[in-house]
Amino acid sequence: MNKKVVTFGEVMMRLSPPGYEKFSQASSFELVYGGGEANVGISCAYLGMEATHVTRFPDNALGKAATQFLRRHWLNTDYVVYGDDMMGKYFLEKGAVHRPSEVIYEREGSAFSLIQPEMVNWEEILKDADWFHWTGITPAISEGAAQCCLDAIKTANRLGVTVSGDVNSRNNMWKYGKTMRQVIPDMVKNTDVVITSSRGIREMFDFGSPEDGFQDLAKILISNFPGIKKVVKKTRRIMSASHHQIQGKLWNGEKYIKTDMLNITHIIDRVGTGDAFAAGLIYGLLHYKDKQALDFASAACALKHTVPGDVNTVSLENVLSLMEGDSGEIKR
Amino acid sequence: MNKKVVTFGEVMMRLSPPGYEKFSQASSFELVYGGGEANVGISCAYLGMEATHVTRFPDNALGKAATQFLRRHWLNTDYVVYGDDMMGKYFLEKGAVHRPSEVIYEREGSAFSLIQPEMVNWEEILKDADWFHWTGITPAISEGAAQCCLDAIKTANRLGVTVSGDVNSRNNMWKYGKTMRQVIPDMVKNTDVVITSSRGIREMFDFGSPEDGFQDLAKILISNFPGIKKVVKKTRRIMSASHHQIQGKLWNGEKYIKTDMLNITHIIDRVGTGDAFAAGLIYGLLHYKDKQALDFASAACALKHTVPGDVNTVSLENVLSLMEGDSGEIKR
Amino acid sequence: MNKKVVTFGEVMMRLSPPGYEKFSQASSFELVYGGGEANVGISCAYLGMEATHVTRFPDNALGKAATQFLRRHWLNTDYVVYGDDMMGKYFLEKGAVHRPSEVIYEREGSAFSLIQPEMVNWEEILKDADWFHWTGITPAISEGAAQCCLDAIKTANRLGVTVSGDVNSRNNMWKYGKTMRQVIPDMVKNTDVVITSSRGIREMFDFGSPEDGFQDLAKILISNFPGIKKVVKKTRRIMSASHHQIQGKLWNGEKYIKTDMLNITHIIDRVGTGDAFAAGLIYGLLHYKDKQALDFASAACALKHTVPGDVNTVSLENVLSLMEGDSGEIKR
Amino acid sequence: MNKKVVTFGEVMMRLSPPGYEKFSQASSFELVYGGGEANVGISCAYLGMEATHVTRFPDNALGKAATQFLRRHWLNTDYVVYGDDMMGKYFLEKGAVHRPSEVIYEREGSAFSLIQPEMVNWEEILKDADWFHWTGITPAISEGAAQCCLDAIKTANRLGVTVSGDVNSRNNMWKYGKTMRQVIPDMVKNTDVVITSSRGIREMFDFGSPEDGFQDLAKILISNFPGIKKVVKKTRRIMSASHHQIQGKLWNGEKYIKTDMLNITHIIDRVGTGDAFAAGLIYGLLHYKDKQALDFASAACALKHTVPGDVNTVSLENVLSLMEGDSGEIKR
Amino acid sequence: MNKKVVTFGEVMMRLSPPGYEKFSQASSFELVYGGGEANVGISCAYLGMEATHVTRFPDNALGKAATQFLRRHWLNTDYVVYGDDMMGKYFLEKGAVHRPSEVIYEREGSAFSLIQPEMVNWEEILKDADWFHWTGITPAISEGAAQCCLDAIKTANRLGVTVSGDVNSRNNMWKYGKTMRQVIPDMVKNTDVVITSSRGIREMFDFGSPEDGFQDLAKILISNFPGIKKVVKKTRRIMSASHHQIQGKLWNGEKYIKTDMLNITHIIDRVGTGDAFAAGLIYGLLHYKDKQALDFASAACALKHTVPGDVNTVSLENVLSLMEGDSGEIKR
Amino acid sequence: MNKKVVTFGEVMMRLSPPGYEKFSQASSFELVYGGGEANVGISCAYLGMEATHVTRFPDNALGKAATQFLRRHWLNTDYVVYGDDMMGKYFLEKGAVHRPSEVIYEREGSAFSLIQPEMVNWEEILKDADWFHWTGITPAISEGAAQCCLDAIKTANRLGVTVSGDVNSRNNMWKYGKTMRQVIPDMVKNTDVVITSSRGIREMFDFGSPEDGFQDLAKILISNFPGIKKVVKKTRRIMSASHHQIQGKLWNGEKYIKTDMLNITHIIDRVGTGDAFAAGLIYGLLHYKDKQALDFASAACALKHTVPGDVNTVSLENVLSLMEGDSGEIKR
Repeated sequence: MNKKVVTFGEVMMRLSPPGYEKFSQASSFELVYGGGEANVGISCAYLGMEATHVTRFPDNALGKAATQFLRRHWLNTDYVVYGDDMMGKYFLEKGAVHRPSEVIYEREGSAFSLIQPEMVNWEEILKDADWFHWTGITPAISEGAAQCCLDAIKTANRLGVTVSGDVNSRNNMWKYGKTMRQVIPDMVKNTDVVITSSRGIREMFDFGSPEDGFQDLAKILISNFPGIKKVVKKTRRIMSASHHQIQGKLWNGEKYIKTDMLNITHIIDRVGTGDAFAAGLIYGLLHYKDKQALDFASAACALKHTVPGDVNTVSLENVLSLMEGDSGEIKR
Repeated sequence: MNKKVVTFGEVMMRLSPPGYEKFSQASSFELVYGGGEANVGISCAYLGMEATHVTRFPDNALGKAATQFLRRHWLNTDYVVYGDDMMGKYFLEKGAVHRPSEVIYEREGSAFSLIQPEMVNWEEILKDADWFHWTGITPAISEGAAQCCLDAIKTANRLGVTVSGDVNSRNNMWKYGKTMRQVIPDMVKNTDVVITSSRGIREMFDFGSPEDGFQDLAKILISNFPGIKKVVKKTRRIMSASHHQIQGKLWNGEKYIKTDMLNITHIIDRVGTGDAFAAGLIYGLLHYKDKQALDFASAACALKHTVPGDVNTVSLENVLSLMEGDSGEIKR
Repeated sequence: MNKKVVTFGEVMMRLSPPGYEKFSQASSFELVYGGGEANVGISCAYLGMEATHVTRFPDNALGKAATQFLRRHWLNTDYVVYGDDMMGKYFLEKGAVHRPSEVIYEREGSAFSLIQPEMVNWEEILKDADWFHWTGITPAISEGAAQCCLDAIKTANRLGVTVSGDVNSRNNMWKYGKTMRQVIPDMVKNTDVVITSSRGIREMFDFGSPEDGFQDLAKILISNFPGIKKVVKKTRRIMSASHHQIQGKLWNGEKYIKTDMLNITHIIDRVGTGDAFAAGLIYGLLHYKDKQALDFASAACALKHTVPGDVNTVSLENVLSLMEGDSGEIKR
Repeated sequence: MNKKVVTFGEVMMRLSPPGYEKFSQASSFELVYGGGEANVGISCAYLGMEATHVTRFPDNALGKAATQFLRRHWLNTDYVVYGDDMMGKYFLEKGAVHRPSEVIYEREGSAFSLIQPEMVNWEEILKDADWFHWTGITPAISEGAAQCCLDAIKTANRLGVTVSGDVNSRNNMWKYGKTMRQVIPDMVKNTDVVITSSRGIREMFDFGSPEDGFQDLAKILISNFPGIKKVVKKTRRIMSASHHQIQGKLWNGEKYIKTDMLNITHIIDRVGTGDAFAAGLIYGLLHYKDKQALDFASAACALKHTVPGDVNTVSLENVLSLMEGDSGEIKR
Repeated sequence: MNKKVVTFGEVMMRLSPPGYEKFSQASSFELVYGGGEANVGISCAYLGMEATHVTRFPDNALGKAATQFLRRHWLNTDYVVYGDDMMGKYFLEKGAVHRPSEVIYEREGSAFSLIQPEMVNWEEILKDADWFHWTGITPAISEGAAQCCLDAIKTANRLGVTVSGDVNSRNNMWKYGKTMRQVIPDMVKNTDVVITSSRGIREMFDFGSPEDGFQDLAKILISNFPGIKKVVKKTRRIMSASHHQIQGKLWNGEKYIKTDMLNITHIIDRVGTGDAFAAGLIYGLLHYKDKQALDFASAACALKHTVPGDVNTVSLENVLSLMEGDSGEIKR
Repeated sequence: MNKKVVTFGEVMMRLSPPGYEKFSQASSFELVYGGGEANVGISCAYLGMEATHVTRFPDNALGKAATQFLRRHWLNTDYVVYGDDMMGKYFLEKGAVHRPSEVIYEREGSAFSLIQPEMVNWEEILKDADWFHWTGITPAISEGAAQCCLDAIKTANRLGVTVSGDVNSRNNMWKYGKTMRQVIPDMVKNTDVVITSSRGIREMFDFGSPEDGFQDLAKILISNFPGIKKVVKKTRRIMSASHHQIQGKLWNGEKYIKTDMLNITHIIDRVGTGDAFAAGLIYGLLHYKDKQALDFASAACALKHTVPGDVNTVSLENVLSLMEGDSGEIKR
């Protein structure tokens, strides 16, 4: 039977000028939807898992259309809730070479930011799940969102559902009165698989010293929070907006594992590549040993760079094929 | 020398699915900008006038792009102010025949709604103007917007600039604590040319009885507010979303004038047709006698139904040609 | 609780030149999916019902994409089966005024045509259903499809699920060895609500004489097959490819009911309007008395003429609003 | 064997804003090609005739692309000549209802306008032809074009090829030193079938008086130029840019024939409808008696109003079907 | 006088999602046509040759549109035959970097697969030709197609027309009862210029041992089939879906010739690049010595990687310019 | 206060096939506008300067639309003059890798080419300006254009406005009777900042010997024309149509300055990159010392390669960020 993942977080309408037009040149927007956690769910679904996403949309035709996007991309949307009237949004201007992509968010006051714990029944949602995934963006959005997220983590713990969290420090996102350090640690310590970065660990927990590398920091994190089983990091080297290199790193309490560096020379769309990595990791850890899981995550991440939109629509076969060194010849 | 009009109000990003797609079907949005008052300004500019629009946009690339749209359509944007970070928006799904067009607004908390009187220097802006135009939407948006609008009207009065206002009752728009009846009358009484409807007069002022027709109500309005010189109305008969009829009516304190009914059988885009009427009226009253001005306004309004977007980009020649009964033969 | 409908039939990829281009002019195709029965299911889903569609797609990325289309438009696709490798297709060139739309089918040998009875578990699928809908196209496709359809009807009868069938004579479709008259009557007599035409009744059953009107033929049909509860017809008057009139007629064994003629003056897409009528009838008969149900069906049908694609994405509110005489004014 | 028509004249690049956008709104142009005479040739080719078009294009990639358009639409382009470097062009802004379409020409100095008689070998081109068609636009373009056209007519006369000419007075086109009245009569008198209008006859020949109707003027024309066998006219009543009525009229020296008025209520593209009429007339006169030929021409013309672009891509079957009163039902 | 090439084979409708969208994301398809042999013919035509393509299309508007595509791209289509009703098709999803392009064929039962020898008059078609080209795909399609192809080769031999064949082993294509080894050798031995690969030679003829390189195998091939004059190979190194290197190799019975490796770093569309090589080779061998011919073929092939669609629309000048080392500076 | 630049020159309609389509494949054109000098003005405006462009457009809707494009991109268009009826145009086919972009001009007889000195009041236009910029294209267009340009330079000299000129030898452009060497030197010697190339200096002035490098030639130029303060060059190494390297060089009479080579690996649109360099240089010299100004110019130039269209719409922040070594990470 297929493994089942549950994800929770805001899904935004993504509006981008066609091709490489700048905002100042656009006369139309391409429309897709995305959000870190739903991106993970969809990616898992394309790999063959069952995926349920929990979110809140405005109670109007735009909220319905957002749900339809999630359904189209294989998510179970039975637990989407509706209310209020503003859709979270982000505008994406795609860069190239020396010109960076630019993102403008409009998510303040969105239907999701007004979510309250009593709107979601985690017991029911998580009862058959194998995995729950959250990210550090959600607790930054609002007190209600943070509480919902913590409830989910705790329910998952209780039901024996594995928890992963993708947490990085975007301090400037925290605007509702609480700080990152007040909220995040309580979540992270109940999370089995923590995806983060050296800077993330330092800033969120005030752990380690500037000289500590990722392996050192991962050890400190686990020794402080023994509930954490694995600490994982995706390293990205940015040659230009069109050319990146990525590498996965993992500390599982015993071994420090690294993948080969993958070279991505003609990027189509880099948004959501971190989410593709997280999804690959979830799929990988559910089906393989740690090294292979990390390779799988890196390959999935690399492939997302070639897919337009936020979500990684590549198949299991695509990922396996890249892991086996396939060079990109046409499949007929 | 060309006559100069100044307009003031919110300009929204307008996002619409291509053609006749519903929101549930769209994978892109056509992008234009619109707002009742700027629509009037642009329409006047295409007719040959000089037009300045005053508004407030977010201080980011989207706000700049909105300004660029206004500049493209000939507006003077020297007095646009920037601040905060949300762009007002509306989503438009275009209907046909029995299926109505549907509009979803997202304008709460927009940069414009946060405008404050001290951000605008009306003395400078209006000093060479011939005309100032406002609509009843602006005072409904926020206390700041209402105050700015009233300042503009009073400054115009003081400088001898003719004032027109397009005021109708959309009671459900008033959400910031004041009611329509508290705010609107003070503005209307300082307005030379009032464009409104029978229901508008009844609801905004509690004037007249249900049996009173437009002419009766217009008389009552002027007798109560002698500063008002003309009361004007655009009647619309809706056969279907694709077929309307329009007619202009005007009471100038002495005569009651009506235009012939214009039959618009294949509507392309009806948004902004009221603004096209207002602009036609402004141009007309500045250049012709009342009857011809009203005919001009009706013709401009009719032509807007054939232009995609919010703004009426037809030329003076187009309007005059329709007034002379041109039937739509190709111009080579 | 929402009512649940199950539909069964082929879903084709629909490829059409943009706008009014002819096949000889196209350099791209717009891509949607459609099929009489799924169109009914989707239409019911937009009206608020739960809808499950059963079909068979090729086991490749195109078959998956077709399923994704159905999911996007709210269908439950848990019972879609996959196999073989050809997607049924139709090409649609949209006409206007005196130029008829033209359709070219490519459905021979499609994955659906190769369906076999053992591929579908009707007991499970229909166990909670309120309604099952089939059309006369399915039994014409292949022996396997016909047998599946008959199994579904009989299972529905046994489980007390109401059955509707939309059957018209397209004699030229029957190519696999059996004739319409050999196959159809056995299905129709187990069908509670039969949507058909005078010519349909005459040709499929050899009933009645050329002088008999619809009411006469409906009576004969019911007297021959007492399992039939209602016989329904949608009359269409075609002024041009851009302008139709429609009217619903129903004989329920006791009364002959007709709706007013609805005038559709600016057709956007007439494909699937019959399916919208059937869906409206299903929704109507499940929620209203016969007269109101027929009015509802006609209104739903009329609205579909304004929606691009095969499927009727209008809402319950849209249909009710038209029944109340709404004339097409913008909804804000 | 299929009948063979030869046409001669300029083909222009046609650039139009998408949909109903005005020039002031466009950020792209739809690209097709058109010219009165080539439109006739293409239309004849779609009806099943063999058609050769003679023209001159710039000797660059744009000239080649223009030829490719003609080839795509079935023309024999073996006699296209190349030279110089400017492509004739016209910009078309499509109108609707009260807003007229607008055309801006840029054809001065085009490769075609620089054509010289020695560039074309009419003996060879016309040797197997059944029909030669020219229009009054060609002699207005340049002395070289006029001379080429006259050479073609005279060669056709000598070889027994029937000649038709579509001549109307566009006085303002004549800029190269000669006047319409100096050039046109010599061409018309050698033309078997003259398509023109009452005003055309009066202005080009100074024939008749203001009270003379078309029949009177046609008689005068034939009596003056006995080489003319038929004089034909297409009457157009313009209700709006979206709604026209057309009617064909023909005087064959013996009988005055009129078609029924055809009502075209939802025009898609009216450019080239006169050429579709001329092509229909050519096909008709080659295959039917006069009355049926005129009906055929009118039906072909009516259908063109529904086809985007300059050229009439409808089939023989489409035209015959309209002549038989088909109302626009889908062809499956 | 221009050299004349004749090609024979299936032409398929090619449907691809825009840009880099996957099938799961598309809401439209870009439409072109392609097939190995027609691609060669068109490529030759753009280089300045006369090219006739022989194929069979369904007898409907889609078959006509396919012919129109070939005409647009300069092919003589006088010998296209029509019949039956299914168009061969392929769907192409374009990959990038590590994500391979994916192709789904739907060609079983196509009009071309039902071709029979008596439908084609090779004597007439080949009588003035200089060259005939076939590929190994055609005999794999059906017995009728194989027989037609063999007839063409033998007729060409008899008439002294040079024959080239592009034959590679796609064993999985052979489904109609015969095997590659039963059919191919009889064709290859009558072919003057054989384009193939080491694996192709080994698998089609069971020649050579695994250690034999291309040169060895080419020698064996010619020694077995002395009718073969040249054996040619295009080597492709695939760095990623976006970056290839190509090199041509040729054994002419006396000398082994290789081109420099060409580096193609930003691939736009790699479909049809082998056909561009074959066409370059044909043009080259007709106009130059072997080494230059092979350089020409490689340059033509490299350029095709930058042209969207199946066909190589670059000019002779483009190819010569690359051969001379032009680095890609704008041509003004 | 913002610095003010004035530019003068032709602005052409630019028509390009979408994506990488060749002219032979296009069925639409993307529409923007461009011209060396206006490109410089717009680029300066995006960097925060005030920019006025002086040009002449046809007096019709196309000329108006061109002005609207300039306004949209922030130019002051108060001094645009209108007359005659032909819009200058260029067609751009975008290349990749080994396939060069191709440009076809149609500018002969354009409204701009008919400009006369008396149409422009340079005293008024330049009175508050800080900088005037011209290019060597303008004097090549027509005697009138050359005279206007010389008038502007001399007026600027008199008013103390700094003058820059971007002059290269495109000998084949000079068609109106005068030669480059007759006209250019008189302009260059009154120009403070000369952007040119070694070949440019040699050909325009007959200075130097083939062995002289840029530094030598720059010295000779300044020693001959002491009014010149700086001689600047942009070196471009073309690896392919998709990959360039650029470097700036400057001789200021005292020091020879070079920037690092910038590597641009995935070019989106290279048209206008020289103009972006010139604009960057103007901005740089107005705000920084020479070395930093040259670095700024190179960075601006590099960024333009990633922006579709002729004009460089990047912001000051983008340029500064690249100068600081930013690698292309998303800006959120």
